[in-house]
Amino acid sequence: MEQKKKTTIVLFSGDYDKAMAAFIIANGAAAYDHDVTIFATFWGLNTLRKDEAVQTNKGMLEKMFGWMMPRGANKLGLSRMQMLGMGPKMIKHVIKKHNAMTLPQLIELAQEMGVKIVGCTMTMDLLGIQKEEMIEGVELGGVAAYLGDASEGNVNLFI
Amino acid sequence: MEQKKKTTIVLFSGDYDKAMAAFIIANGAAAYDHDVTIFATFWGLNTLRKDEAVQTNKGMLEKMFGWMMPRGANKLGLSRMQMLGMGPKMIKHVIKKHNAMTLPQLIELAQEMGVKIVGCTMTMDLLGIQKEEMIEGVELGGVAAYLGDASEGNVNLFI
Amino acid sequence: MEQKKKTTIVLFSGDYDKAMAAFIIANGAAAYDHDVTIFATFWGLNTLRKDEAVQTNKGMLEKMFGWMMPRGANKLGLSRMQMLGMGPKMIKHVIKKHNAMTLPQLIELAQEMGVKIVGCTMTMDLLGIQKEEMIEGVELGGVAAYLGDASEGNVNLFI
Repeated sequence: MEQKKKTTIVLFSGDYDKAMAAFIIANGAAAYDHDVTIFATFWGLNTLRKDEAVQTNKGMLEKMFGWMMPRGANKLGLSRMQMLGMGPKMIKHVIKKHNAMTLPQLIELAQEMGVKIVGCTMTMDLLGIQKEEMIEGVELGGVAAYLGDASEGNVNLFI
Repeated sequence: MEQKKKTTIVLFSGDYDKAMAAFIIANGAAAYDHDVTIFATFWGLNTLRKDEAVQTNKGMLEKMFGWMMPRGANKLGLSRMQMLGMGPKMIKHVIKKHNAMTLPQLIELAQEMGVKIVGCTMTMDLLGIQKEEMIEGVELGGVAAYLGDASEGNVNLFI
Repeated sequence: MEQKKKTTIVLFSGDYDKAMAAFIIANGAAAYDHDVTIFATFWGLNTLRKDEAVQTNKGMLEKMFGWMMPRGANKLGLSRMQMLGMGPKMIKHVIKKHNAMTLPQLIELAQEMGVKIVGCTMTMDLLGIQKEEMIEGVELGGVAAYLGDASEGNVNLFI
């Protein structure tokens, strides 16, 4: 029996466009029956935050990070052409016009297709992001788990 | 008979320096007889635009994107030290001084060495970039074609 | 005898947070007994500069690049939330609070674990960075050496 191919993506970036690229590749790979893992770390964790505020018990610095960082996929900016927020609006407009999927829809699809989405525990600690603030279905893991998957991977990307 | 090694690069970035890195690695891999594919998506598509205006039939939003995005490799900015355009000038100056290759020359060499350059159809649609606006020799393809190449690849990078 | 797994990382970025991610992954892979190479190119070279000024014989343009680019790992900015330098201070603060490792410590650990750190000769030439300006133990190499390692690699990332 042939083994399933594996795709892993480190999602470091917290940009709407880069996260879109990550989930489009992940969903494509899942459609080709790869085992797919997205390992979200640093600003990529913001992609996975719930869009409402969640009651947590945090120190001042962690609260500040929480306020300053975008809360969830729909709040992310672009890696370029941000234009005081007009860029993201334009992109979302053309996505609808072309019947393409928005980032929240891409994430939902990924979860339906069985893409494993892992939040990096070390950077969650550093940035003060707690599990309850993340969308349902996200697992937690460290760099060791990522490397275990990636060293068996056919396609490994850092985005 | 041993199979040829494969290198694939997703060129997402529209920065002069990052595109240089992508084409230097691609051309190096081609010199080592790898099958090489560059899959240009999002801002990376700007690297492949012709530097003259091309008559097209577009909606208003697509026209706006077309005006705001750099037209071709020579117009790209840097990922840092942009300094109101002085950075790219300085980089091009030191490239000439050291007899290194500019980005347009690296792209030309890539095409001569048989590097397959593919424009991502989905993001061309989103950003309103049409085939006639791209330099000669660029193929069009989707994420499925990319994944087909990458899952056989020895070196797969996202730049 | 099974061959050791290989991990290669192109460190293109000169951001504190991205360099942290690169060295955390590299050190993790070394702990799992991979052969690990970090190939520092373009702005990634700044990560490896000594923090004191080094007497060199350079042209004017190379001197300017030298002045404008951050001198060493501790001087790097963040890829986002830079906030006029407050961001890096906050990150270093939470790193200490959580007993995590700073970037200079991660680099030192990488060297102790035998991670091969290579400076890209071509971009050192372009940016006018000389070997004496780099921390001890950094090797020099070109894209050919990188591709030699990467084409045998299990995990190859571009950061």
